[in-house]
Amino acid sequence: MSTPDPVHPTSVRLRVFSLNCWGIRYLSKHCAQRYTMIGDLLAKEQYDVVLLQEVWSEKDFDALRKKLASSLPYGHYFKSGVIGSGLAIFSKHRIQDTFRYRYSLNGYPYMLNHGDWFGGKAVGMAVLNIGNTTAHFYVTHLHAEYSREKDSYLPHRVVQAWELQHFIRYTSAEADLVVLAGDFNMHPMDLGNRLLRTYADLRDAYVETPKFDGCEDGGTMIAENPNNDMVPPEKGIRIDYILFKGSSRLELHCESMSTTKGSVLDHAFPYSDHEALTAELRLDRVAQDGVSQDGSNGMGPLARGSDRTAGKLAELVDIVTEARTEVKVGLHCAQGMCYTAARTGVMGLVLLLLELAIAAVPWLALGAPGPFPSVSFYLLGALCFLILLTTALLYLFYTMEIKSLQEAEDQMRQAVGCLQERLRGFPLASPGPPGKERRPGGVGPEE
Amino acid sequence: MSTPDPVHPTSVRLRVFSLNCWGIRYLSKHCAQRYTMIGDLLAKEQYDVVLLQEVWSEKDFDALRKKLASSLPYGHYFKSGVIGSGLAIFSKHRIQDTFRYRYSLNGYPYMLNHGDWFGGKAVGMAVLNIGNTTAHFYVTHLHAEYSREKDSYLPHRVVQAWELQHFIRYTSAEADLVVLAGDFNMHPMDLGNRLLRTYADLRDAYVETPKFDGCEDGGTMIAENPNNDMVPPEKGIRIDYILFKGSSRLELHCESMSTTKGSVLDHAFPYSDHEALTAELRLDRVAQDGVSQDGSNGMGPLARGSDRTAGKLAELVDIVTEARTEVKVGLHCAQGMCYTAARTGVMGLVLLLLELAIAAVPWLALGAPGPFPSVSFYLLGALCFLILLTTALLYLFYTMEIKSLQEAEDQMRQAVGCLQERLRGFPLASPGPPGKERRPGGVGPEE
Repeated sequence: MSTPDPVHPTSVRLRVFSLNCWGIRYLSKHCAQRYTMIGDLLAKEQYDVVLLQEVWSEKDFDALRKKLASSLPYGHYFKSGVIGSGLAIFSKHRIQDTFRYRYSLNGYPYMLNHGDWFGGKAVGMAVLNIGNTTAHFYVTHLHAEYSREKDSYLPHRVVQAWELQHFIRYTSAEADLVVLAGDFNMHPMDLGNRLLRTYADLRDAYVETPKFDGCEDGGTMIAENPNNDMVPPEKGIRIDYILFKGSSRLELHCESMSTTKGSVLDHAFPYSDHEALTAELRLDRVAQDGVSQDGSNGMGPLARGSDRTAGKLAELVDIVTEARTEVKVGLHCAQGMCYTAARTGVMGLVLLLLELAIAAVPWLALGAPGPFPSVSFYLLGALCFLILLTTALLYLFYTMEIKSLQEAEDQMRQAVGCLQERLRGFPLASPGPPGKERRPGGVGPEE
Repeated sequence: MSTPDPVHPTSVRLRVFSLNCWGIRYLSKHCAQRYTMIGDLLAKEQYDVVLLQEVWSEKDFDALRKKLASSLPYGHYFKSGVIGSGLAIFSKHRIQDTFRYRYSLNGYPYMLNHGDWFGGKAVGMAVLNIGNTTAHFYVTHLHAEYSREKDSYLPHRVVQAWELQHFIRYTSAEADLVVLAGDFNMHPMDLGNRLLRTYADLRDAYVETPKFDGCEDGGTMIAENPNNDMVPPEKGIRIDYILFKGSSRLELHCESMSTTKGSVLDHAFPYSDHEALTAELRLDRVAQDGVSQDGSNGMGPLARGSDRTAGKLAELVDIVTEARTEVKVGLHCAQGMCYTAARTGVMGLVLLLLELAIAAVPWLALGAPGPFPSVSFYLLGALCFLILLTTALLYLFYTMEIKSLQEAEDQMRQAVGCLQERLRGFPLASPGPPGKERRPGGVGPEE
């Protein structure tokens, strides 16, 4: 609740909730009942902002909205792709504006069993005014990881993380408070996660909080949850996050964090196949002299002295280089698939021409014996046509994939170049104006 | 050139160039020769930043880059869609970072004769540091207008303009200087143009400049240009623009502007089917007290007094409402087309089942006379299959179009609501802190 705090009388507290709802109608187990449970929870608990993922049906969003009309009167569903992005936000505070960035890459349309492509995955942004604080809330859901050992979607997820950090970095420059929540489908130390946290200078609520109540190691996909089809390791994995950052005008602390623990009291099944996250954030306005109430400079750990920043620059160079390598691997695969599609298409065309030539001969030789054309002739013709059509569509799709991968790789190359230049010219341990490097969030362009 | 100005000794000048290059290899007239001419021009003239559109081949971009290695050493090509966005930037100043936003809507893939869809149209952003100024340059190309009377792409272009203003507004909050150039495919008073200029608070270089040398009424598509296939009205039309805005830290003036006038001295044909634009901008740092060297407050005409802002809010409400109506018309059409695709698909399926039933009868009646199946049977089967496949793809595509239109409409509804609320509570002609409403650019979220 955005109410004054008795210990920090001028502070304001915010309660943020995030859950991947696993809301595939008719396919997810107990979907309708679970939405009822989720609605009851949200109506009862005094959340300020609720960020949901995998709300695949707008009807479910509308039902929630109706139910939460008095407790969380403002809401937005981010429409995208074929079936919608699944991303939704509910808020106690008026939503001033929303914006959506759809990721360039998001799996393959022919992978019907995975289905990520149809979701048109995106990051949704909502601008809220909480008192005199401008808050930007972001909700996202990145491409699923179907196999940790052979993760063919890794380059797509890395590019999504790259675009996500870019989007947050540039759109949050004027925000006092930034919160990103969602299902990242990445373990805490996975490449995309490091890239996102480091470049956009976001702090992990689970890591920062002094008070945590939830599953072991903060797991949000746990073996104890009976809804899990893909049973995670015994200790569970942490793939859902609440990240945040303040600004030079506002210091932000995560006072406590909790997750659900599989089962729900008085209910036969959990809210979802993921665990829900709740974070309590404390907002302290920074005084004009740049010092907040508790004496810190309000800039978080990443803007304290230039040696720290130099170290962060070096870390960023490593991370972006690693990401670039991953994108290059993806590029190599995409180019291979594009080439295969083109070659198969050409073979289909040759086969079709060959067949037409065979058909033309008896037509020219009018006195040919026996009935023509035969069943096999037409079937072969249809097959050739199907091959041509499919390979043409695949060729188009892979070409677009290649363009997006190349664009990300170009941007990464450029970023590494600029970061290295800054690093070379960095006056080690010189004082420098504190906080100057915070704009546009994290390590932004050189100023 | 970003050199000190003798009249305003502490001012800095920037020369910005924009051209739609009409660079479709083998299709655009004199394509290779025109690129040579464009390259010569850019190498000779002392531009700071060059923003190009319709550079459809990356090979042409690479050739330009090689040629401009000494005069404009930094460049970026924004890759997107199937053939690339066509957008490119060259700069004398190091490009610190680039980012790209691909529009949700951009025509139809089956409109091969128009081809906009394949370009994956987008807005490209480049972050430059010019001295101690952070400059954000944006280049874009919106969907073409093939018929002014019956413009079926209008809702798509309006949504593009909506996304463009959103993108610029939020990503430029920390910039001292913002320049947007490109081929908008909109006349000066067209809805999308008004939306863009008013919401993102951008000033039109042609309107602002005291010194203009170019075609009548600033036309950039003129009848005198022999490359024009679609001859514009006698006076020409203005669809290419250079827009700009400063910030509270930097005042910006357009000192002069010019366009090419069709023919080029010593050459048989013009640079393109569009005219090229050049703007000379003067940058004045605003002193700490918020007053620039020439005594103004550095905020442009849109932040001077609250009555002006109230008027602008009312104007914005009207424009966004108009845009929303246009999007609703597009939504109605898209829903109709989606319904038609579904209905045709069902008919194809019924026809296929009927045919299979006919085929099954003689199979069951083993003693049926005459050879079966016949040519017409297989042709009909292939036709049914083709109908099913095509309508399925169209259905998918229209569903995605509907989602994007709905998302834009939702955002517009929300924006109108917030703007109206601000307008209702607006203290008419009260002094108010000057320039407060500038963040995040133009009329941003309530503060």
